[in-house]
Amino acid sequence: MDAMTSEGIFRNGIDLQRLAGILELIQADPERARFRFRARNRWVGGGENRSTVFDFDGLGDTRIVRHKPFEFTNAEPPALFGHDESASALEFLLHALAGSITTTLVLRAATLGIAIESLFTEVEGEIDVRGMLGVEDAPPSGYEHIRVVIDMHADCDDADVAAMIEFARVHAPVCGALMRAVPIQIERAGAPDAA
Amino acid sequence: MDAMTSEGIFRNGIDLQRLAGILELIQADPERARFRFRARNRWVGGGENRSTVFDFDGLGDTRIVRHKPFEFTNAEPPALFGHDESASALEFLLHALAGSITTTLVLRAATLGIAIESLFTEVEGEIDVRGMLGVEDAPPSGYEHIRVVIDMHADCDDADVAAMIEFARVHAPVCGALMRAVPIQIERAGAPDAA
Repeated sequence: MDAMTSEGIFRNGIDLQRLAGILELIQADPERARFRFRARNRWVGGGENRSTVFDFDGLGDTRIVRHKPFEFTNAEPPALFGHDESASALEFLLHALAGSITTTLVLRAATLGIAIESLFTEVEGEIDVRGMLGVEDAPPSGYEHIRVVIDMHADCDDADVAAMIEFARVHAPVCGALMRAVPIQIERAGAPDAA
Repeated sequence: MDAMTSEGIFRNGIDLQRLAGILELIQADPERARFRFRARNRWVGGGENRSTVFDFDGLGDTRIVRHKPFEFTNAEPPALFGHDESASALEFLLHALAGSITTTLVLRAATLGIAIESLFTEVEGEIDVRGMLGVEDAPPSGYEHIRVVIDMHADCDDADVAAMIEFARVHAPVCGALMRAVPIQIERAGAPDAA
């Protein structure tokens, strides 16, 4: 379960010493827990656009950069108006939700000393696309309902698994962002008071 | 602006005849506007997990499949507890938001007969990571605030751009999903009543 290497003690692949170090930093100054993430997106054409994810602020540092920029393409299927160059934004949202729940479960298990054997998550969201397509009097756009099915095996009993899943429901940040309303401020470049 | 090819009339890269056909299908039966998107995620190890996006339901069809499955990896930076194999779930959420706003703007402009020259979007979200890390009495997890800056140039006046951005704020589906609370149902595989 725990693996000891020259670099430290790992549980579920999480470096427990590094995690403890991060928690110490944050306890000394809770402002260090504030992270600011970014994506920069460019329209390519039609239903295709591409984001670059490169830098973020966190742990009291600004503009922490990656070894390289990550690029991701949003696109639309032919059933809407695209050419299937990639998944759609609505599917990337589900990918983010599944990943956030998974990582929160893995971290929680590592903290509790529980080894995860396997963890699969299926996410399904229902939406009415009329608003996006510009149909008059359409219902508000956005998922009406999202269902998450978690298949988790770990060296603990069922009640522990249920408790970890409840922890993830409350604390997985993408889950929280979707369950609660996030204020979104939209501005035009060069016109900070507009829109 | 409009490009006429052997396949149809395109505006902003959107096939207007195909779009009209989709709208006709939906007007004949609004149930066809209901789409169901999916992602299937597998934990790889540590902060790394991978989603497959392949099929969806929509336009009255079930299990529409892509020519190939799309795969995306969530990971964490070393400043948290990972190895930067990819962007984090919180960054994929911003990628999805930027893409949804962009595609909604492109569609809206195509419908209005406006040609977009360029469209860039920067998205930044602020979050306190204590909840996810398991710190006691942490504030609820999730973005506290998201800022979107849109740099759009099109063959119309400023008021038209502002009106299209307002349309996207209301109708971009990922924007709607974040601005309104989405009910999320979490189940365990093989135990539909649990969690």
